[in-house]
Amino acid sequence: MEKRKELLIPDRTLMGPGPSDVAPSVLRAMASPLLGHLDPAFLDIMNRIMEQLRQLFGTENYMTLPMSGTGSAGMETVFVNSLEPGDKVIVCVNGVFGQRMADVASRCGAEVITVEAPWGEAIQTEQVEQALKTHAPVKAVAIVQAETSTGVWQPLADISAAAHQYDALFIVDAVTSLGGVPVEVDQHKIDICYSGTQKCISAPPGLSPVTINERGLASLNQRKQKVQSWYLDLTMLQGYWGNERVYHHTAPISMNYALYEAARLILSEEGLENCYQRHLKLGRAMQAGLQAMGLVLPVEESIRLPQLTTVEIPEGVTDADIRKQLLDRFGIEIGGGLGVFKGKLWRVGLMGSSCREKNVISFLTALHLLLKEQGCMTDIKAGLDTFNSRL
Amino acid sequence: MEKRKELLIPDRTLMGPGPSDVAPSVLRAMASPLLGHLDPAFLDIMNRIMEQLRQLFGTENYMTLPMSGTGSAGMETVFVNSLEPGDKVIVCVNGVFGQRMADVASRCGAEVITVEAPWGEAIQTEQVEQALKTHAPVKAVAIVQAETSTGVWQPLADISAAAHQYDALFIVDAVTSLGGVPVEVDQHKIDICYSGTQKCISAPPGLSPVTINERGLASLNQRKQKVQSWYLDLTMLQGYWGNERVYHHTAPISMNYALYEAARLILSEEGLENCYQRHLKLGRAMQAGLQAMGLVLPVEESIRLPQLTTVEIPEGVTDADIRKQLLDRFGIEIGGGLGVFKGKLWRVGLMGSSCREKNVISFLTALHLLLKEQGCMTDIKAGLDTFNSRL
Repeated sequence: MEKRKELLIPDRTLMGPGPSDVAPSVLRAMASPLLGHLDPAFLDIMNRIMEQLRQLFGTENYMTLPMSGTGSAGMETVFVNSLEPGDKVIVCVNGVFGQRMADVASRCGAEVITVEAPWGEAIQTEQVEQALKTHAPVKAVAIVQAETSTGVWQPLADISAAAHQYDALFIVDAVTSLGGVPVEVDQHKIDICYSGTQKCISAPPGLSPVTINERGLASLNQRKQKVQSWYLDLTMLQGYWGNERVYHHTAPISMNYALYEAARLILSEEGLENCYQRHLKLGRAMQAGLQAMGLVLPVEESIRLPQLTTVEIPEGVTDADIRKQLLDRFGIEIGGGLGVFKGKLWRVGLMGSSCREKNVISFLTALHLLLKEQGCMTDIKAGLDTFNSRL
Repeated sequence: MEKRKELLIPDRTLMGPGPSDVAPSVLRAMASPLLGHLDPAFLDIMNRIMEQLRQLFGTENYMTLPMSGTGSAGMETVFVNSLEPGDKVIVCVNGVFGQRMADVASRCGAEVITVEAPWGEAIQTEQVEQALKTHAPVKAVAIVQAETSTGVWQPLADISAAAHQYDALFIVDAVTSLGGVPVEVDQHKIDICYSGTQKCISAPPGLSPVTINERGLASLNQRKQKVQSWYLDLTMLQGYWGNERVYHHTAPISMNYALYEAARLILSEEGLENCYQRHLKLGRAMQAGLQAMGLVLPVEESIRLPQLTTVEIPEGVTDADIRKQLLDRFGIEIGGGLGVFKGKLWRVGLMGSSCREKNVISFLTALHLLLKEQGCMTDIKAGLDTFNSRL
């Protein structure tokens, strides 16, 4: 029989839109031997993870748990549980993940009303208010806090207030925000929120933290129909993650080990506030450096995420070549554009363990060299000086 | 700030219904640094995993891929993709996982016709034929090959023929069978099959291998409605796992590393036939040993799985105490009964890396000692001699 090769993983620095680099202690935790999903030792880990996630989300919600799938499974969890056929839902769309929410919601049989803003801009509260007024009663308003396809940091407070004024549930996608910038579920009165582990939390992809408050649960428990997804049915998962510990499905044990250790690094070793500060400072410094080099950032600074930066591709530069050489020669992964931004911009992540000074200087320098080879000159000296002065 | 504890994992031997023990090289592979989900190095691993899964399933189906969730996500994948509202589906029910299939199928809006057998017995072909005749046209027939709640090994060939005679898709749950006993998707003309990684494959839980043949794909591509699950939509996943490599969701990178190495151990180090033989020989030997000790196995040998054995709990013995002491004193996990078998039997797994001679003698001996403490005498000498003579 033909011998298959052992796994050889090339050296990478992950500066794309996720996954981000994972700390050695997280990889080590993940490699611990398995426990059964009903073992008291694992149930204890589950309880501790729920408590960690509450701190990360800024909530006291009891139902705060990692769903057994990646971020998009979290998105689907939220919509299949909160919507029933015929419900009206307002979905804010200013990028790929807003579009995806609209698609997922429509597959629940909901009537989807989209509120749109140009990609790279934020959704305005007045737009949402207008839609709420026109379409009342509306079951829920859904919005992305950190739009990974554009790098926009969406303000939430006023839109939350508008949603509640019209008695709608307020749903937030925090996939790229959790751990990187404050989410503050309770303070923002977010009723249901979901995230992913592979962005600013820096655990591998495979789990999707979800939190739901009493209002969200009340809505869930008043459903007329079963949740259309068995796998993502929170009415059943309450039994496993709650006190009864009823078997639902086999949880991804190893991924939970990784999430536990990744959250522990943030909450107990670094501190959550320090973690936000690191993302903000390094992100803003890199952005200033890129601009000093002569590159253009399409998103206005007041709504620009620190952990995910979009950079316009200079005219005459071949997108795919730059990204391929960054990967092949320097081991640096950045992301290409999605949707209307395909071929027009790059997405540079400074998330979680990838958010380090040494990564920024490698990236700026490598990018400078590669652009130069394509005849595009950038001022690397000004870029590095500016970056350094902002730290 | 309060320091959270580091992860401490107690020593366990996993002899329950899954997860099973994971080999050190699989844990090591899983702890490799992350790659991006569109990195050419990861795309190469994906291709190799697809090829490995084809060998494990016994199929040439191009669409053979690991879904990003545990076994129940695989079950849901199969039903949401193959059924549309109003379709009739025959679901064979002789245990928890048949019941679950019926529940999942009904959530797709399908009309579910159940064909039932007592728990611990197999479904008879005539029952399925009768249902096909009565309810024609039927979109699909679904059955569990290895019913994890009872230990029954369901014969497939005749039921497959019946389903195809009535032009129905033949769907098989191979969660507990894949890697332990032959599944042989092509030979059995199984149109759609799904499994899990945490049973006889001995990778951690978190992925669900699925395979679908041309007939299944044709049915998929003739759908009138979108698949109700965005996350599990095979029409979209074809783009990511096919040649185009279109981004769908972020695959659980580390779990795929683990699956690759676990499959490599089976296919390239041990050999698939040897792996089946190991499960069959050790399973049958342990079963004979248990009977020689004086314990009762409720499932007839001709339909008894080697990798998952159900054992009746002797009268007067306290189920929970025995399992707790097995775990606390000896580090051995076995499973309790589910559904109608709750409190009536134990489920003992010999799956994948857990399927070892040393685990059997530890388990038989520990069980003997614990039963004796509860006043239940077993003949451990006969048990061990019988076990040994069957190896």
